[in-house]
Amino acid sequence: MAKPRLKIIPLGGLGEIGKNMMVMEYENDIIIIDAGLMFPEEEMFGVDLVIPDITYLLEKREHIRGIIITHGHEDHIGALPYLLPQLDIDVPIYSTKLTSGLISVKLKERRARAKADLKVMPTGEKFNLGIFRIEFFTVTHSIPDAVGIIIHTPLGIIVHSGDFKIDYTPVSGQPTDMARLAQLGTQGVLLLMSDSTYAELPGYTPSEKVVGEALDSVIAQAPGRVIVATFSSLISRIQQVIDAAAKYQRRVSIVGRSMQDTVRMSLELGYLNDTDGVLARLDELRGLPRNKIVFVTTGSQGEPTSALVRIANRDHHQLHIIRGDTVVFSASPIPGNEAVIHRTVNSLFKQGAQVLYRGQEQVHVHGHASQEELKLVLNVVKPKFFMPIHGEYRHLQLHANLAQSVGLPGENILVLEDGDILELSPQAAKITGKTSCGNVYVDGLSVGDIGSVVLRDRKMLSRDGIVMVIIAINRQSGKLVGRPDIVTRGFVDSRESKEMLDASRDLVVRALDHGNDRPADWGFINNKVRDVLNNFYYEQTKRRPMIFPFMVKV
Amino acid sequence: MAKPRLKIIPLGGLGEIGKNMMVMEYENDIIIIDAGLMFPEEEMFGVDLVIPDITYLLEKREHIRGIIITHGHEDHIGALPYLLPQLDIDVPIYSTKLTSGLISVKLKERRARAKADLKVMPTGEKFNLGIFRIEFFTVTHSIPDAVGIIIHTPLGIIVHSGDFKIDYTPVSGQPTDMARLAQLGTQGVLLLMSDSTYAELPGYTPSEKVVGEALDSVIAQAPGRVIVATFSSLISRIQQVIDAAAKYQRRVSIVGRSMQDTVRMSLELGYLNDTDGVLARLDELRGLPRNKIVFVTTGSQGEPTSALVRIANRDHHQLHIIRGDTVVFSASPIPGNEAVIHRTVNSLFKQGAQVLYRGQEQVHVHGHASQEELKLVLNVVKPKFFMPIHGEYRHLQLHANLAQSVGLPGENILVLEDGDILELSPQAAKITGKTSCGNVYVDGLSVGDIGSVVLRDRKMLSRDGIVMVIIAINRQSGKLVGRPDIVTRGFVDSRESKEMLDASRDLVVRALDHGNDRPADWGFINNKVRDVLNNFYYEQTKRRPMIFPFMVKV
Repeated sequence: MAKPRLKIIPLGGLGEIGKNMMVMEYENDIIIIDAGLMFPEEEMFGVDLVIPDITYLLEKREHIRGIIITHGHEDHIGALPYLLPQLDIDVPIYSTKLTSGLISVKLKERRARAKADLKVMPTGEKFNLGIFRIEFFTVTHSIPDAVGIIIHTPLGIIVHSGDFKIDYTPVSGQPTDMARLAQLGTQGVLLLMSDSTYAELPGYTPSEKVVGEALDSVIAQAPGRVIVATFSSLISRIQQVIDAAAKYQRRVSIVGRSMQDTVRMSLELGYLNDTDGVLARLDELRGLPRNKIVFVTTGSQGEPTSALVRIANRDHHQLHIIRGDTVVFSASPIPGNEAVIHRTVNSLFKQGAQVLYRGQEQVHVHGHASQEELKLVLNVVKPKFFMPIHGEYRHLQLHANLAQSVGLPGENILVLEDGDILELSPQAAKITGKTSCGNVYVDGLSVGDIGSVVLRDRKMLSRDGIVMVIIAINRQSGKLVGRPDIVTRGFVDSRESKEMLDASRDLVVRALDHGNDRPADWGFINNKVRDVLNNFYYEQTKRRPMIFPFMVKV
Repeated sequence: MAKPRLKIIPLGGLGEIGKNMMVMEYENDIIIIDAGLMFPEEEMFGVDLVIPDITYLLEKREHIRGIIITHGHEDHIGALPYLLPQLDIDVPIYSTKLTSGLISVKLKERRARAKADLKVMPTGEKFNLGIFRIEFFTVTHSIPDAVGIIIHTPLGIIVHSGDFKIDYTPVSGQPTDMARLAQLGTQGVLLLMSDSTYAELPGYTPSEKVVGEALDSVIAQAPGRVIVATFSSLISRIQQVIDAAAKYQRRVSIVGRSMQDTVRMSLELGYLNDTDGVLARLDELRGLPRNKIVFVTTGSQGEPTSALVRIANRDHHQLHIIRGDTVVFSASPIPGNEAVIHRTVNSLFKQGAQVLYRGQEQVHVHGHASQEELKLVLNVVKPKFFMPIHGEYRHLQLHANLAQSVGLPGENILVLEDGDILELSPQAAKITGKTSCGNVYVDGLSVGDIGSVVLRDRKMLSRDGIVMVIIAINRQSGKLVGRPDIVTRGFVDSRESKEMLDASRDLVVRALDHGNDRPADWGFINNKVRDVLNNFYYEQTKRRPMIFPFMVKV
């Protein structure tokens, strides 16, 4: 009889940045690592969020022993409120303390299974999920309490890096636990799955501490108020602003509700310290000299509803830019956000602020390992098999190239994409199949009802608009009654193009006025009207609006 | 009587990257510098191109003495085919040889005033346009034959940099003429207008020669075929590929019609040399070993119809990726193109190519001056007034900061935006007004008929689609006949949402069935149906489709 094999199936995050989700299966035991969302790309018109397709899991839901979450970012926890109701079983969710807090906030926001079975697990402690024995290890990332995962399986040890970088002087929490990884390396690791997000970047990612020095010098030298924009989950950054402000006797006010919530929770759970009591409400700053004030806010990605963007648009009810303000973007642009960020920067400049963006002064470092760190981990863990995770295909392939450059044989490096089923034995690894995967769109209240047809229609409508034609037909004679009505949206300016639209109404009249002596055949009329108008409009405008004839019998 | 003043009015290019156009006016003499287009931004749904609004010029068209073009890039010449017919006068167009050739190609493509009055003017020679005396000076840029402009006016000398960088070892043409600039500096320059496109970048832009070395090493070491993607106007880059290929006994084939046309013209005009005869047609490469082949192609920006993108999609009729191919993106992404470029890179990797992109190997340098070069020009020209040109507001402001850092008084630095009217005297410079400016959209055949209403409709349609409701009303009684028909596009999946759509039809019936005893008032019915459906759909889906009721009397 064939020995049972270990299956590894990425359902998200391999082939795109975001919606990370990994399935691990051995006989009747399944564990899931992460359940993230992705923000829509440009062509996903009107879509709010994208989550993984879990068809594969729905068929085996009774085998699921638990969900393990590596850290509290949206691309690792954001799909939980949508997927838990789909799974519809009481599956425990394991994570560290802060991550667990963020998950419970998220679940409450969406009112999804408010009493989910959240289990807080400290690093180093082992717990069993079916046949799997699990252990968290500390990693440094751009949010506190991030972990990687060690999975003891019947076939050997598997290491999942989570999102990480190597930072020997992190601002909050512990450095990535290289000692534990080295220990595992000497024991023998069957498979390493490691974060590829920044596999394009040569060298080392600088320490978060560097940012502290840069922020310190900006806050020391700024002639007026300083506004620092960053991610609300980047607690260590907020800590560094608080520390620098304290040093220069400035007070700090957090602007925007979402960041205020995170700061409150982080203070309570001990991830953030305000020993000097510099944090203040906005109204407490009244009367302070401008060079004694710092604001921290969201909006570093140009999010339209964020405080910073509303300030830039002179649309914030409490805060306006004053000449002499310094605005610091302490974040790098998430790909795709560049245009809106730049629009915000332009507006801030126009109002007289000096703006530090694109990291001119090292006011930001990112949270993922660069090439030398990735090579270091490969060297220390010495896995038999290696699988790059988290990234578009190019990131995975470049990470695979790195693995080969440090000596792993090409056939032991497995570049998978979402839905690939990898089967592992202690000696061999092979992609043996493909399961359904892909994007599930969340648009408003619905999950998954938007498919390619709706998106294709939205795309067509966005390009050349729509033309609606109302045709009245005499019930008895089948002949056209009067002239058809034509209404357009998004096609042409109806006033400026009145003549052309009028001409097209006449064209429809002529097309249908062929002395029909049989009752009108709707299919025929429909096609004829579409053809005639399509050709005429294209010839006149080189545009192809969606054309909709309606026939009414009178 | 007040002395006549010099007016300077940017109609494009100050506040955005692209559609560069500058007007200079003294009494009854007007000259225009550049007439470029801009490619549409994300929110400009369905728009093909954007050109400047020349309302200001149309009122004074008989004063226009000439159009001066600094170089042959689209953002400097691309609006000519659209603006010349609008101006409808025989205005001479002055430029250097290659630029003139590219303009005439462009005008022929669009069949716009094929017999435009193109005048070729070498650098250093002076010519008069009304009161203005003009002289071109050499600049280095990412296209041969680029120039800056010296304008002798009754008030003093004005220098317009064009697009430039300082490269002491350019591959084609001459270095930027610093000697002439220094000469002018000692004579006294009233106003310097200088390129801000890369004012964000610290340091110096590397020489084009650096790229030659990088390309040489890639071509020397590549185990198989090399595919170099770049801009078709980047002649010096194509020259460097030809030179490197010759060195390693490779043949070079140009793939794609637009690049083939440019290469042919450049060979004819002497801007490109193939002394070793390495250029070959695609079919001449048959039988050559793979490591003797280089292709040069467009598609570095992920343009959907380019050869490279079709190759990446396995959609090219002659060329497919073979494992072992090396693809080099010898170009940096134009902002906004990142996503499509990355999609292309991912596809190329998936097919087994090694891909060099994001300049890992210095296979690209850009064509604009970085901060130290900008400071050098400011120092050499020593203008009384300075006006940063070519860039979004942030670029202009950063360039202004640089000018201040080298000692120009803040009040002599003029950060203008499109449409601002600057009035200059020898002693003072002031923004005295604003003229109509902004974006004119080209969509298909029409120029300017698309306005904000059409774009707003396209945006709405792209988000949540459209719902059309056909309501039949009895002509006599004013009562509803039958159930209304509802058709949707881009809103929901009509099959999956059949129940909801049915319910909404009933809702319309109920809303209109209030025992009307007066004839139907269409305005009332229209609003009522919209309100009822809007609320119902939002409650059911959290989406807001465009709702279109049609009433037909039967």
